[in-house]
Amino acid sequence: MSIRPKDNFDQGLIARKSISVRFSEVDAMGIVWHGNYLKYFEDGRDEFGSVYDLDFVKVYSKEGFLTPLVKVDIDYKRTLKLGEKAIIETRFVPTDAAKIIFDYRLLNQDTKQVLTTGRTIQVFVKDEELAITVPRFFQEWKDKWLRV
Amino acid sequence: MSIRPKDNFDQGLIARKSISVRFSEVDAMGIVWHGNYLKYFEDGRDEFGSVYDLDFVKVYSKEGFLTPLVKVDIDYKRTLKLGEKAIIETRFVPTDAAKIIFDYRLLNQDTKQVLTTGRTIQVFVKDEELAITVPRFFQEWKDKWLRV
Amino acid sequence: MSIRPKDNFDQGLIARKSISVRFSEVDAMGIVWHGNYLKYFEDGRDEFGSVYDLDFVKVYSKEGFLTPLVKVDIDYKRTLKLGEKAIIETRFVPTDAAKIIFDYRLLNQDTKQVLTTGRTIQVFVKDEELAITVPRFFQEWKDKWLRV
Amino acid sequence: MSIRPKDNFDQGLIARKSISVRFSEVDAMGIVWHGNYLKYFEDGRDEFGSVYDLDFVKVYSKEGFLTPLVKVDIDYKRTLKLGEKAIIETRFVPTDAAKIIFDYRLLNQDTKQVLTTGRTIQVFVKDEELAITVPRFFQEWKDKWLRV
Repeated sequence: MSIRPKDNFDQGLIARKSISVRFSEVDAMGIVWHGNYLKYFEDGRDEFGSVYDLDFVKVYSKEGFLTPLVKVDIDYKRTLKLGEKAIIETRFVPTDAAKIIFDYRLLNQDTKQVLTTGRTIQVFVKDEELAITVPRFFQEWKDKWLRV
Repeated sequence: MSIRPKDNFDQGLIARKSISVRFSEVDAMGIVWHGNYLKYFEDGRDEFGSVYDLDFVKVYSKEGFLTPLVKVDIDYKRTLKLGEKAIIETRFVPTDAAKIIFDYRLLNQDTKQVLTTGRTIQVFVKDEELAITVPRFFQEWKDKWLRV
Repeated sequence: MSIRPKDNFDQGLIARKSISVRFSEVDAMGIVWHGNYLKYFEDGRDEFGSVYDLDFVKVYSKEGFLTPLVKVDIDYKRTLKLGEKAIIETRFVPTDAAKIIFDYRLLNQDTKQVLTTGRTIQVFVKDEELAITVPRFFQEWKDKWLRV
Repeated sequence: MSIRPKDNFDQGLIARKSISVRFSEVDAMGIVWHGNYLKYFEDGRDEFGSVYDLDFVKVYSKEGFLTPLVKVDIDYKRTLKLGEKAIIETRFVPTDAAKIIFDYRLLNQDTKQVLTTGRTIQVFVKDEELAITVPRFFQEWKDKWLRV
């Protein structure tokens, strides 16, 4: 199972959610402050969890895992301004490693131009120990959703 | 023991701390977004805790209390811009109630003009119960610092 | 025209909007950090602007006014946790002064309990001058929406 | 002039600044929310600008350039908790391209362990046009600071 290119949003498990820019998220240049895109990515992960039955709050409490981020990268291509709306697309990136990888694509809701792309990598931590094998509940989730 | 007027920063227990405006704290009008002043007030409470031996992190863990805010009010008089520096003054407001009251005054570091004033009220919560009498450790702290 | 009590959400111009708590908005106690409620109030004002034709972005650019906040107060009654949903109610408070006053009420979406109440006061600024009379466009808006 | 490895903080133009974790920056797990590290990186760039005479606020107004971020990547290695202090190291990464590249290293102030590393890439924009050659003022700055 190889990791597909980041800009491939035509196939796979993808969730889409509409984003409204808050006044408090815009900087002195009138565009969304670069760090706030990580909130949109988080909105994307939440939406993904709702759609694909992978709610991390419920997973946390039920399975005893935390899933901290270990890597984030973002490419900023076009700006998002106050009053504009966007769509955050969140795609699950399959991997055999004990990791959760998501790719993101933020589109201008009107023009459909790509504003930002990104990737996050999360790991599984239980009782303050890093899981080095895929936790069983997560493997079951993958078996359910990723089988052809 | 009556509650003194909010703009009285000439006497009492007062802590002062310098504040630098972050780019991410400024809004599309180039001034600090109004909600971010609550971060400066929090910086003020932290500084107060350092100076007057009332560190809330240590109090939390040691005495088992949380001290959630129940009331905040802020008056915005002048704006604070990117590149400007300010001083947050935090004054302990004595009260016999089971509350922690602080008044704040944010000054432009250069002109000394008052930019913002505010007040926060916190209560004591232990084991998810609101304390209706002043916790002993806090009374002792008051006895130590407020006696004439 | 007198200012009605803050908890009167039975009549007047009111907008309602659903709020989802972001993970990044929650503090170390697992509840929404107190300053983030100001973002929900801002969401409320935005929604009010959409519903009642008082979009501030459009008003800014069209009429040349900024409407900075000069006063905020918030009462925190119950906490809002990660995974919970809320409703922000925003009510226009009529006044003859050259001010924009909104009252807010944040309700738990499930229990309908009141979590937070607040009030914001904004003024009109044009060309860096505070407007001391109600701007014409705003008086017309009030005449349209507030007449019995 | 090649781009040196990201973890090389032994030579080059480096600024160091102490960071205090704000209560509002910590998440429900009691650790700094991952997006807030971008504020520390921004603090790092500010400090760099102070030390090496490259204040972006002054550069903006004086030279008419904006310097938006086009790329961010962050590796999270260890967590930073409430009450802990850190040091943000910001190193200028020389390049012949019309870009500003900084590497960051966040260290625990006490243990000196590396908590986070990252890189940001900024470009020059003037009159809404991307600069494809290095602006003269920036070349002069580089000639001054980077010559052996």
